Amino acid sequence: MSGAATKRVTVTERGAAGRLTEREDVVAVEEPLEIRVAGRGIAVTMRTPGHDRELVAGFLLTEGVVRAAEDLLDVYACRDLPLGQEGNVVEAVLSKAARARFEPERLTRHVFTASSCGLCGKATIAALAGVLPPLRGAEAAGEAGRFARAEIGLWPERLRVAQPGFGATGGLHAAARFSARGELLAVREDVGRHNALDKLIGAALWAGETPLASDAVLVSGRLSFELVQKCWAAGVTLLAGIGAPSSLAVETAQAACMTLVGFLRADRANVYAGAERLG
Amino acid sequence: MSGAATKRVTVTERGAAGRLTEREDVVAVEEPLEIRVAGRGIAVTMRTPGHDRELVAGFLLTEGVVRAAEDLLDVYACRDLPLGQEGNVVEAVLSKAARARFEPERLTRHVFTASSCGLCGKATIAALAGVLPPLRGAEAAGEAGRFARAEIGLWPERLRVAQPGFGATGGLHAAARFSARGELLAVREDVGRHNALDKLIGAALWAGETPLASDAVLVSGRLSFELVQKCWAAGVTLLAGIGAPSSLAVETAQAACMTLVGFLRADRANVYAGAERLG
Repeated sequence: MSGAATKRVTVTERGAAGRLTEREDVVAVEEPLEIRVAGRGIAVTMRTPGHDRELVAGFLLTEGVVRAAEDLLDVYACRDLPLGQEGNVVEAVLSKAARARFEPERLTRHVFTASSCGLCGKATIAALAGVLPPLRGAEAAGEAGRFARAEIGLWPERLRVAQPGFGATGGLHAAARFSARGELLAVREDVGRHNALDKLIGAALWAGETPLASDAVLVSGRLSFELVQKCWAAGVTLLAGIGAPSSLAVETAQAACMTLVGFLRADRANVYAGAERLG
Repeated sequence: MSGAATKRVTVTERGAAGRLTEREDVVAVEEPLEIRVAGRGIAVTMRTPGHDRELVAGFLLTEGVVRAAEDLLDVYACRDLPLGQEGNVVEAVLSKAARARFEPERLTRHVFTASSCGLCGKATIAALAGVLPPLRGAEAAGEAGRFARAEIGLWPERLRVAQPGFGATGGLHAAARFSARGELLAVREDVGRHNALDKLIGAALWAGETPLASDAVLVSGRLSFELVQKCWAAGVTLLAGIGAPSSLAVETAQAACMTLVGFLRADRANVYAGAERLG
């Protein structure tokens, strides 16, 4: 069961006068995807089908299994699966070097980030700093690493019109990539916010464009620790969100020297870290 | 590092005229919590501190480790932890029966639900139906199991005024429990939507009120598969959300004979499953 990102369902609607009407509605599809390495399942994520190769590439990069494009040789859909599971199991083929480094027991999503990193915010950030390379500084990048304040306020509206699935369902998160000159380079959608970001980053990995040191990422929702961590792993220097950040998202962005912008609107924005990149 | 649910940070604000001002802002706290059983870490979740005993109880109930209140003897904070980790590691003490049944390898959050359940929506639902008891039907419950249409439209506003953390930060999800007569029984908040629901359900477990066959749950966001699964495990017969459901959330609610309401507003609501409970 794979393919479409949206699906028709029948909904009973209660109107203003309490009158019931049945009509068709469109919802975002949510289906499990199992990621295998050397035939062994290493993670299952509930995702919206589509861009699965990108999702896997982004997941492996942002979880540290893959460090660069050459570490990931291929991602393909497994065959001979029971009825209904076609397309929901994929095999990732790692390079010899990545295979030698791979420790599956450190991976399991949501357990990896925290338990192998320490059990408080400070320890979590310190562990990431020991593993992830520092981001390119605003001074080193010069003009290429700066973003115009007036420009970033235009991004939410551009993301909105480039988000077909959300318009249809109201149920998809989005992640978008913008250049420092304000070009919308890519948009990905998913029922899961981390999946939308993984797809966006994975697309860049397949295109040989990681690390994304010159680009910014905008997400449609809130800014959690996990999203900051993924952007850090992908080299993203500016992460913006329509919603609020968490405390650990702010502290991680500060430690990474990443610019973190919350509550982004046309006429205002809250800068929680790295204000020096906004010119 | 535990205790407060919100935290002050310094934010650089860009106003309408592009003018920069520094001011204090309040963000939702996000910190890791490790849950241990018999001294062994079985899960780490990124949560907002507070109501941790409830979070653990709800997590264990909705993941199937604990089936009833008597299966969970105690939850306490581990001592002698490194600086900064105090309060971020808790030990759950299971009854002898629950310990004997416990299979930690089936558990890891996000991997459990799907990988041990099958790798497509249908198989996932079938596996849940084999494990979870059926929900109390609308007919069996009579008037006690019915919810007035006019009444449920009032819930979002009541949740909003009962959500102090969201008002301060804009960054907390909420889950609330309502009786069939429309009383707001409890509200819990968290940076994670599943954590807010786990806290709400865990509070009911500690109070000896599970399964919640007569009550409804309202969540502040979207309706994912995971939230429907948790409500099913807790016996909740009506789940409503301010946001959109996913395809698998709708299909799981239908299979569970749960009433699922999306896009809940004062004057309208979309009923995706179980319309017979709305009188």
